[in-house]
Amino acid sequence: VGFGNVARRFVRLLDERQDVVRRRYGIDWRVIGIATRRHGCLVDPAGIDAGLACDVVVDRGGSLAAGPMSRTARPCADAQEVIAAAHALGPPRGVVLETTTLNVVDGEPAASHVRAALEAGFDVVSANKGPVACAYDELCAVADRTGRTFRFEGAVMDGVPIFNLVRETLPAVEVIGFRGVVNSTTNYILCEMERGVPFAVALAEMQAQGIAEADASLDVDGWDAAAKTAALVNVLMGGCLRPAGVARTGVAALTPDAARRPLAQGQRLRLVASARRGPEGIVASVSPVTVPLSDPLAQLEGMANALILETDLLGEVAIVQRDGGLTQTAYALLTDLLSLRR
Amino acid sequence: VGFGNVARRFVRLLDERQDVVRRRYGIDWRVIGIATRRHGCLVDPAGIDAGLACDVVVDRGGSLAAGPMSRTARPCADAQEVIAAAHALGPPRGVVLETTTLNVVDGEPAASHVRAALEAGFDVVSANKGPVACAYDELCAVADRTGRTFRFEGAVMDGVPIFNLVRETLPAVEVIGFRGVVNSTTNYILCEMERGVPFAVALAEMQAQGIAEADASLDVDGWDAAAKTAALVNVLMGGCLRPAGVARTGVAALTPDAARRPLAQGQRLRLVASARRGPEGIVASVSPVTVPLSDPLAQLEGMANALILETDLLGEVAIVQRDGGLTQTAYALLTDLLSLRR
Repeated sequence: VGFGNVARRFVRLLDERQDVVRRRYGIDWRVIGIATRRHGCLVDPAGIDAGLACDVVVDRGGSLAAGPMSRTARPCADAQEVIAAAHALGPPRGVVLETTTLNVVDGEPAASHVRAALEAGFDVVSANKGPVACAYDELCAVADRTGRTFRFEGAVMDGVPIFNLVRETLPAVEVIGFRGVVNSTTNYILCEMERGVPFAVALAEMQAQGIAEADASLDVDGWDAAAKTAALVNVLMGGCLRPAGVARTGVAALTPDAARRPLAQGQRLRLVASARRGPEGIVASVSPVTVPLSDPLAQLEGMANALILETDLLGEVAIVQRDGGLTQTAYALLTDLLSLRR
Repeated sequence: VGFGNVARRFVRLLDERQDVVRRRYGIDWRVIGIATRRHGCLVDPAGIDAGLACDVVVDRGGSLAAGPMSRTARPCADAQEVIAAAHALGPPRGVVLETTTLNVVDGEPAASHVRAALEAGFDVVSANKGPVACAYDELCAVADRTGRTFRFEGAVMDGVPIFNLVRETLPAVEVIGFRGVVNSTTNYILCEMERGVPFAVALAEMQAQGIAEADASLDVDGWDAAAKTAALVNVLMGGCLRPAGVARTGVAALTPDAARRPLAQGQRLRLVASARRGPEGIVASVSPVTVPLSDPLAQLEGMANALILETDLLGEVAIVQRDGGLTQTAYALLTDLLSLRR
């Protein structure tokens, strides 16, 4: 569901790593449905040639439903119909990959896609932070009831493990809070502004590279970071927070001077996402903060991200993503798929 | 096997976290054998009062075998006899915790303890880097043959996940190399020397805190870091390296001046453990290296540790331990125990 850059990179990654995927994990896959917003939707029980689908969508800008992919392919109206049609094919059930774009208000339509897929007996892997930020409790309840699994490693810091890190490798540890730089576009803009580059020029560069969200205000107004903060609070701290519940200040009002000024005091300006459990519950915020050079967040150049977890047993543990990009996000889907298999 | 600070802290940690251990993981435990080097060894099928054993060993400096712990307790000559006696009790098999001190030459007697325990049908959890650095292939073969599991998260960076991070959360990723600061004592000494504190004074402080190895040359000559490097190469990169195979330069010859000099060029001196797969195989080293302030390794203060993994799919991923200590090492044993249960 969703057949943009991430989903198409994922399809190629599956092929590139088929040795590991098939041999080590024993996964034999075929794509039986694709739902796109602008290029049609279809289901084919015999398996869709995903490479050809990429060509149709990207090179020819065409519709999957119009140009017949195979004789057994059946056009559908939308994602819900694709899920229903795939369900009607009967077992074996597969995995629905949700990669539609972010909606920070209510996580829709992604949350409904996840819900419908779980109800139809599919496991769900998503790179979309919307459902985790806006409907995590409800989707967990559906997954529990249907005995399926909902995974979303790609929602924060691409394929660098955050949710799996805590779930799989930090058992019996309580996350008391966290601080992080989780939005690549704004970190790049702040780094460029330190060097005197105007805000608009730095933003345009991120848009040209396809890193900034389609709606740039999601990045520069802190909405993307707020959605990630809500997702982290909901999953790692057992909270029940929505993006709108995160105190939020973006970077749009900042000037190169404001970004440069802290350097003189041995500090740097970073858009910091943080949350902490206090006597009055969990308090979360996203805002530009000056951090000393000794802080791991100060050292993040360009599109690098980092998250510092504050834990009860281990003190502070930080994980840093030094390189980001499409492959890393596509890998997030793969890591969830393989972890489902295990 | 081994009942020093780490094992005793682990026993208390099990009690402190019994809610999670018993309720969430369904583990009901009893200690049925303890092997020490200087305080005797015993096996008791009815269960040993571990708190009392701590008292006997620590407060009274006494022998476990001499002062009868219970009427069913049976003294043993050494660790091998404890393992054999526990084996003779029959199922259910449990877990042998190996926490004896480091031997960088051949990993003994720890490697023999691990081998004997696996052969006797026990899973093994170790905080000792010796067996992983010196006998990993062989111990894996024994574990495979006996169908048991050998875990050792505590061998590097205490309870901060390294081995579990790669195994559980980075499937299908190849580790091409790594760079890290993995020895707390030497990092503390380098930080202190930057401030003008003489080498001997800084080392004495680490010894007073119980952080430095009993034999300080293991830290300052780079042996501890070399053993960790070998362990990382063997496990994460599929290599077959021994501590002696790591090109090694320690910090004992350094002066405060040498530590301070790089600061003027915006650099810091760090004892860097690294390995990389090249055309002629894996090359590994431990040596003092000047790193720019923008390097995550430069920011590590005092006893902090970090490891930067270079991977094929995710680029560089770093994990940082900002706080270390006895609880963190004891937690490493707990994380392995819980992961065995899962």
